[in-house]
Amino acid sequence: MLRGARVNDMYYEDFHVGQRFASRSQVMTRERILAFGEEFDPQPQHTSEAAAAASNFGELIASGWHTAALTMRLLLSGEFKPAGGIVGAGMESLRWPLPVRPGDDLRVESEILEVRPSKSRPAQGLIKVRTSTFNQKNELVQEFVGNLVVPRRTPA
Amino acid sequence: MLRGARVNDMYYEDFHVGQRFASRSQVMTRERILAFGEEFDPQPQHTSEAAAAASNFGELIASGWHTAALTMRLLLSGEFKPAGGIVGAGMESLRWPLPVRPGDDLRVESEILEVRPSKSRPAQGLIKVRTSTFNQKNELVQEFVGNLVVPRRTPA
Repeated sequence: MLRGARVNDMYYEDFHVGQRFASRSQVMTRERILAFGEEFDPQPQHTSEAAAAASNFGELIASGWHTAALTMRLLLSGEFKPAGGIVGAGMESLRWPLPVRPGDDLRVESEILEVRPSKSRPAQGLIKVRTSTFNQKNELVQEFVGNLVVPRRTPA
Repeated sequence: MLRGARVNDMYYEDFHVGQRFASRSQVMTRERILAFGEEFDPQPQHTSEAAAAASNFGELIASGWHTAALTMRLLLSGEFKPAGGIVGAGMESLRWPLPVRPGDDLRVESEILEVRPSKSRPAQGLIKVRTSTFNQKNELVQEFVGNLVVPRRTPA
């Protein structure tokens, strides 16, 4: 096992196309929207209700990068537990179809789209995962497709 | 002009392929790496030096989502100023070729890859932008390609 691996960690051999994983939910609060906006994305729609109301968005919404970061948190607390952690080799797409508003309760679903061996590293495999973030109305607010490096239980 | 637009804001008509924009730099501090890791990406390589040293990474590094968020901050403080703000229609790719360590001084360069009219919205255009984040050694630590919606000065 890898250093730090947990008993129920998943290896390359445990993944298959179509597998799905759920997460708990977490509320995106007004306070965190404003704090994140101030630090990382100081545009009117993220930094105050008054400025947001006067912006093209018309209301306070979370930075897309905040939704992405909270999604990572939910992913880590959910059922999807690759051994060695969630280590991204890169995203193929990332989009935000709907805004996230204060009080929205977000949860994440992941689905395995591809499982393939690593050509260069016999001790690893690659999995392609679609991670979808939903609000409390089950509306899709974010979707990304990423490739993750996962260790093999038995080298190829 | 859009509500909130500044005098030097750029419209669809002002963009052309090959244009480049720079930013100031900002240091990724140990304190913020730990705080962001604790809140959003609580894996050993992001939450303490001791845990990071025992992880497969061997040292404390910033969450990729932290680098993405700081990149947004640098982008907003730089020369790239589309009217109406930086409004993403989605990313085509996002990758982190090298880790970001405490004390790394990051800066951003953007390059316009495509400029095209919007088929459905005559008052808007779309630009494709590659945003590259470099450390103080001019090593690429993050790259994303995104599509942005920009207003036209004169509707099509």
